[in-house]
Amino acid sequence: MKVYEIQQFGLESLVQAERPEPKIKDNQILIKVSAVSLNFRDLMTVMGSYNPKQKLPLIPLSDGVGEVVAIGQEVKRVKVGDRVAAIFAQKWIAGEPERKRLGTTLGGPYDGTLAEYIALDEDGIVHLPNHLSNEEAATLPCAGVTAWNAIISHGKLKAGDTILLQGTGGVSIFALQFAKLVGARVIITSSSDEKLARARALGADETINYKNNPDWEKQVRELTDGNGVDHVVEVGGTNTFDKALKSVRFAGQISVIGILSGPSAKLNLVPILMQNLRIQGIIVGSRTDFEDMNRAIELHKMKPVVDKLFSFDQTREAFEMMASGSHFGKIVIKF
Amino acid sequence: MKVYEIQQFGLESLVQAERPEPKIKDNQILIKVSAVSLNFRDLMTVMGSYNPKQKLPLIPLSDGVGEVVAIGQEVKRVKVGDRVAAIFAQKWIAGEPERKRLGTTLGGPYDGTLAEYIALDEDGIVHLPNHLSNEEAATLPCAGVTAWNAIISHGKLKAGDTILLQGTGGVSIFALQFAKLVGARVIITSSSDEKLARARALGADETINYKNNPDWEKQVRELTDGNGVDHVVEVGGTNTFDKALKSVRFAGQISVIGILSGPSAKLNLVPILMQNLRIQGIIVGSRTDFEDMNRAIELHKMKPVVDKLFSFDQTREAFEMMASGSHFGKIVIKF
Amino acid sequence: MKVYEIQQFGLESLVQAERPEPKIKDNQILIKVSAVSLNFRDLMTVMGSYNPKQKLPLIPLSDGVGEVVAIGQEVKRVKVGDRVAAIFAQKWIAGEPERKRLGTTLGGPYDGTLAEYIALDEDGIVHLPNHLSNEEAATLPCAGVTAWNAIISHGKLKAGDTILLQGTGGVSIFALQFAKLVGARVIITSSSDEKLARARALGADETINYKNNPDWEKQVRELTDGNGVDHVVEVGGTNTFDKALKSVRFAGQISVIGILSGPSAKLNLVPILMQNLRIQGIIVGSRTDFEDMNRAIELHKMKPVVDKLFSFDQTREAFEMMASGSHFGKIVIKF
Amino acid sequence: MKVYEIQQFGLESLVQAERPEPKIKDNQILIKVSAVSLNFRDLMTVMGSYNPKQKLPLIPLSDGVGEVVAIGQEVKRVKVGDRVAAIFAQKWIAGEPERKRLGTTLGGPYDGTLAEYIALDEDGIVHLPNHLSNEEAATLPCAGVTAWNAIISHGKLKAGDTILLQGTGGVSIFALQFAKLVGARVIITSSSDEKLARARALGADETINYKNNPDWEKQVRELTDGNGVDHVVEVGGTNTFDKALKSVRFAGQISVIGILSGPSAKLNLVPILMQNLRIQGIIVGSRTDFEDMNRAIELHKMKPVVDKLFSFDQTREAFEMMASGSHFGKIVIKF
Repeated sequence: MKVYEIQQFGLESLVQAERPEPKIKDNQILIKVSAVSLNFRDLMTVMGSYNPKQKLPLIPLSDGVGEVVAIGQEVKRVKVGDRVAAIFAQKWIAGEPERKRLGTTLGGPYDGTLAEYIALDEDGIVHLPNHLSNEEAATLPCAGVTAWNAIISHGKLKAGDTILLQGTGGVSIFALQFAKLVGARVIITSSSDEKLARARALGADETINYKNNPDWEKQVRELTDGNGVDHVVEVGGTNTFDKALKSVRFAGQISVIGILSGPSAKLNLVPILMQNLRIQGIIVGSRTDFEDMNRAIELHKMKPVVDKLFSFDQTREAFEMMASGSHFGKIVIKF
Repeated sequence: MKVYEIQQFGLESLVQAERPEPKIKDNQILIKVSAVSLNFRDLMTVMGSYNPKQKLPLIPLSDGVGEVVAIGQEVKRVKVGDRVAAIFAQKWIAGEPERKRLGTTLGGPYDGTLAEYIALDEDGIVHLPNHLSNEEAATLPCAGVTAWNAIISHGKLKAGDTILLQGTGGVSIFALQFAKLVGARVIITSSSDEKLARARALGADETINYKNNPDWEKQVRELTDGNGVDHVVEVGGTNTFDKALKSVRFAGQISVIGILSGPSAKLNLVPILMQNLRIQGIIVGSRTDFEDMNRAIELHKMKPVVDKLFSFDQTREAFEMMASGSHFGKIVIKF
Repeated sequence: MKVYEIQQFGLESLVQAERPEPKIKDNQILIKVSAVSLNFRDLMTVMGSYNPKQKLPLIPLSDGVGEVVAIGQEVKRVKVGDRVAAIFAQKWIAGEPERKRLGTTLGGPYDGTLAEYIALDEDGIVHLPNHLSNEEAATLPCAGVTAWNAIISHGKLKAGDTILLQGTGGVSIFALQFAKLVGARVIITSSSDEKLARARALGADETINYKNNPDWEKQVRELTDGNGVDHVVEVGGTNTFDKALKSVRFAGQISVIGILSGPSAKLNLVPILMQNLRIQGIIVGSRTDFEDMNRAIELHKMKPVVDKLFSFDQTREAFEMMASGSHFGKIVIKF
Repeated sequence: MKVYEIQQFGLESLVQAERPEPKIKDNQILIKVSAVSLNFRDLMTVMGSYNPKQKLPLIPLSDGVGEVVAIGQEVKRVKVGDRVAAIFAQKWIAGEPERKRLGTTLGGPYDGTLAEYIALDEDGIVHLPNHLSNEEAATLPCAGVTAWNAIISHGKLKAGDTILLQGTGGVSIFALQFAKLVGARVIITSSSDEKLARARALGADETINYKNNPDWEKQVRELTDGNGVDHVVEVGGTNTFDKALKSVRFAGQISVIGILSGPSAKLNLVPILMQNLRIQGIIVGSRTDFEDMNRAIELHKMKPVVDKLFSFDQTREAFEMMASGSHFGKIVIKF
């Protein structure tokens, strides 16, 4: 079967290859993949910056949707013909994350979804809302579940709360959609007025162009009567964290989700202490989070935002688009 | 000033009387009342069934809205001219309920709001969303906060959850509105198709006429793929509790809010144990709950449902309507 | 291999039988059982009152400890020679209970531990504290985890809280030991002064002989300055539930764990509402609960209380002792 | 009456002064102070580094215990002759912290306890465990409640968990005592073997001399089978925060309580994200936290650790000892 492999770190070494079709065990299912989507983590994996010790060659990507074409004789949760998505960490079914459970992720250390067929344990998948196309459903496993976990499972965002979102990448746009589902008020930033207009169309209450407004944390304060927001979903890393600290209210929460701008910075501990803040690292979520999210998506007939579709052969272009940061929502590869 | 007093238990002894205008202390405010609303508890108090040891005469009602016309010299939270509502338990500012805090409620044991003027500690009030009329705002302190506490503070209802509401009284209609704000799915029961139609207009997803359908718990199961609902707001008491037990999913929650149909019944403990259920008694909520609720109401420009307005002189008619159970939403008296 | 089977409901039809030694799959392990323990549920299962639809013959019991004598080729968590215990619900690894997860329990619907060998998925076991004998370790899976879940995972009992325990069965004695580990104050009841003396030796702060003192709920109130206890672990069912309601403080919690005295009773909903109580059904717990409990047991070198040891051939006598209710702590069968 | 005033920032301007005895309002009580204790915050306040905008002169200190010598006519919680302690933030009775509630702290912005008499609202005090001397009780309001909040209310530390404590100041020693009450395992650091021996005598399970062992985070890992601790109480600020990040387990928690070593540092966000950490700022706690703590202290007859007693006239020496960092537990001034 056709797959992509990271043969060495670097985008130029992400190449098509042939692998034998996987064989399934008694408790496994075989999925014919129809669509996959990209996350920033996948780009870092390809570049070697996510986990420099990752063994190669590796089939990248954690997000994938497809049709079940065969099942092992012990399988009970799934039947042939079902449409399913892989869960991010194959052993994280429910409860809190643990190092071991997080060591079972697709697209590193395990081979991922950028392949014609994948074999997974029957516990490692979820079924999907019917109203979604394969391409839309492929966006959910990593970015969708991360946003859900940050603002629902961990964040417990409630009606009337205000949340600050940074940029218009996959996680931020899911967070915008979920925050509106639960009745919160959304402030979102971008460097592009056009993207901000699209965010408004999705329900954003307030938008800030951070390029035109480098001290945007002041505007956040003004939009919240000087109090700051209840919750920040921090995707930018160290370039934006200091502004997040200045944007959040007393005893508010910052979910740390991404490190786009690099790993470390001069960080001031004083506000964490003096403002009684909570900083919470979030890595995706459990299968239960995924199922809860799907139920909400289904009830509201919510549509994930697919920015651009690529073909299997255009995989490198998809990664280049991710690297450019120009996307709004998700980048998807359709088989 | 004019007030109503319960001089003896029984509706016929709820009479207009004259009292001296209250004097405020340094940390108190004087409120000229403009609207009040009724709760089932108020009817029970008048009839002597809520607290038979209540000292009389008592000015009834806990819900009231008015304008601040004077403030003590220590007062900081409020200024003359502010529109405010009394909070239910005057000393319950935040945190968990305590017996002592719940012993400071208006309309029994303390004199209530059915008076031209009331004096309260500055900590015993909240400000109100601007888009609400006085009559609408008067519905909030007891029924609104109870519903908020049951499904948001305690219940942590989230997008995609299904909630079962019983009847169309004040708490159930607020619960319907809040459940929709947070993206949940609502099943509601009534004996009246006309009321069910009104509930649908407010967003109810599924409606059940329990008169036509005495085994309505089965319909609840069918509407939830056999699983049962995540949450029940139980207002009916013992006549409905057994059906609530049959309507809720494994490990689901029942908020016990009302005892309309009397105090006790043959109750089966087995489902509580075997279905891992949580049963949670709810008595209104704290000032913080009230403020959080107001913030959500304001953001969504939500309008409480006032069924019927009465004048001060029609107070007994208002109580008779409450006794009849014919209302949809709240009964309000406008001064 | 030798097993016991429930061939028909009733203790007289619990008989020794021969079964073939189980074969393990790739992800399974084979355990040579060395000790098992009894729970009230097992007695109900034998009598047909736990699940009248249970298919027979069934090997009873959920609690068992033994040595791993073979492993499938995929197994990673366990190696040959490890000492392990089965977890109660084989698929409940972490997180909240779900109907499906609770449908994977040993001793019904699945065959249980009263057999020379059992085969389990590698995920369905835990390792055990070293300081425990096999007989002591065999007491943990059901009664130990139930008590841990009720007072730690769900109950969040903290230092300084007061907890009321009923009787001296397996769950209550574990609850006593865990409550003392976390710095709580324990009030415990029994009909036997001798058992109460043993409870005191294990750390109980206050003891009540309910036979001599039929209105023992009043004594509970007196022992708590009239406030009532923070938490009740209700094992008695309907005979004691009404007293539990009178023993618990405003806004306190009752964990419903057992139904020794029968399924239903006249229950008063009023205190649940007016006292803001929480009633929480508890069925054992997840593997994560088990592991957390083991860590605490190991740190404190805590010893479970084994009342009496029986041999494999004395299995019926063991069940008879359970039926008599005369035990203090756990009844164990040693192979 | 005699008081100390900060007349200008700097220890040399902390001087004795005369003030008129305070007059109480209807809802206030007058306390004759018998003992006060120091916290690092008080030293920062004197030096002007806690809040440079603090208006002077200010009576410092938040911790004080004394006898009620007069009460206003509305007072109900307290009677003359009661022994009470001031709560840290006078308006923080229960629930979550809010900016406004935290703006009502003694010893800045409000005048504090270093005075012969103080007048407080009746809601601004707690009663104290009988077994404590005045000097012991004076240690509780800030350091005691902070440790309780960090590891009990927020941290939910449970039996079997491992906690890392830094140094032997007031908060760390309280945290050690509370952690042992709830059955946790304690690892504590100090630069002094003699202090570590005292910590062991109080129950510390493992001790690390960080002077002899500059890479002490590695030792923490070794002591926890390579996993790291469940919880760190971070008092050191930026010098130690990086080591705290390396000492805590996947999905563990760091409570940020102090900033002894200065406000800011190069902080690495990656572990927060990749290890799913929670960082929680903690500023003392509510009156409810204080009352819960007192209940636990009373049950266990726990004794706070008073390192050294000073007289009122030795107040500056007491501050100098705080500045030296040489203390183990609390520094107290007895009137």
